[in-house]
Amino acid sequence: MADPGKPKLHYFPYSGRAEVLRMAMQYFELDYDEEVVSSQAWVSLKRSGNYEFAHLPMLEIQGKRLVQTSAILRYLCQTNHAYSTSTDQIAQIEAIVELHSDIQEQTLPLMLQDKLTEAKAWYEVHMPEQYFPMIERLLEANGAGQGKYFVGSTVTMADFVMFEFGFDAFQRSQMEDLGVKFAQIAPKFFAFLASFKEQKQSLKRYMSEHNDKPV
Amino acid sequence: MADPGKPKLHYFPYSGRAEVLRMAMQYFELDYDEEVVSSQAWVSLKRSGNYEFAHLPMLEIQGKRLVQTSAILRYLCQTNHAYSTSTDQIAQIEAIVELHSDIQEQTLPLMLQDKLTEAKAWYEVHMPEQYFPMIERLLEANGAGQGKYFVGSTVTMADFVMFEFGFDAFQRSQMEDLGVKFAQIAPKFFAFLASFKEQKQSLKRYMSEHNDKPV
Repeated sequence: MADPGKPKLHYFPYSGRAEVLRMAMQYFELDYDEEVVSSQAWVSLKRSGNYEFAHLPMLEIQGKRLVQTSAILRYLCQTNHAYSTSTDQIAQIEAIVELHSDIQEQTLPLMLQDKLTEAKAWYEVHMPEQYFPMIERLLEANGAGQGKYFVGSTVTMADFVMFEFGFDAFQRSQMEDLGVKFAQIAPKFFAFLASFKEQKQSLKRYMSEHNDKPV
Repeated sequence: MADPGKPKLHYFPYSGRAEVLRMAMQYFELDYDEEVVSSQAWVSLKRSGNYEFAHLPMLEIQGKRLVQTSAILRYLCQTNHAYSTSTDQIAQIEAIVELHSDIQEQTLPLMLQDKLTEAKAWYEVHMPEQYFPMIERLLEANGAGQGKYFVGSTVTMADFVMFEFGFDAFQRSQMEDLGVKFAQIAPKFFAFLASFKEQKQSLKRYMSEHNDKPV
């Protein structure tokens, strides 16, 4: 029988926007259920009023129904000691979250339409020139993180966002040719990706089992 | 002489992404300077390394140089009692902030290219059907806000985002024909917009002086 206290993640049967939430819950060793919503079912479900803003992912947790990916992730991080109470650190964390949104705004529409070639072309143009130098500088500048964390000396929301991004864009089986090429250009970032997965058995297991999940 | 303690907002000579920061600082009665950056100057300035992520707006404040619009706004709200310490309320505030990002992702590129007709067409299709019902429901559901606040009984980041959105999209002189039409469809939202401006003399004065600022 389903445990009523378990979080339940509602999303489509692919990685998409929900993957960062899955990875964070794995990292936190939070046991959760998934309610897989087919695109077909969603057409009528979205009008049911059960999904605020007619939006997925939605996370049922502790009697609440949270929506909007970053808002859900922020909640998970705040309730699992992976955020900050310092306004200065929060500004750094959130600037990195927004940097990722800027990238995702360009690439997610391509990925969701299975336009992998176009997505790869976008990364080839913009990552080496524009974004990798910023990402390398962030890891370099945060001495306290020793290359393992983007902000401060412990895990934060920024790490989940960057970890999921790196995996999704450059390490999934369909994308790993890019990863091989980019590892030379952004060594600190790829070292971060490798070390982050090793931090938690639960996350490592999840990653190895879901490597070929549909995008 | 410039007061070294005054915040300084760096942005282009138009409303754009910085306007919500200007409005929030007016509301908080924070005295600030502006460093107006021309598009021409930005070409070389963005490579100077003084702007993290090569991004504007940037806010110099208390010895820091904050970037990314929402991260800056969140910092201003957190340091001026306009956020929350409750993770539940934060999730609500941030879901509204993201709802606005979803809209802005579609319209800001049009506005920044001066494609007002296209932006208006987008609003005509999507606001009455899709977004206004959500916005009206949010204001209705938050009894504590009495129609004046989106979350809880005091001002939060969500209110600034929605206020700036409403003004920018439906009340500026170039857009007010839409506002006249939409006021019937979204009476709670337009009542919120009217009452919010009246809360602070400083904001009201700013709004009347900047009604015709370039988009």
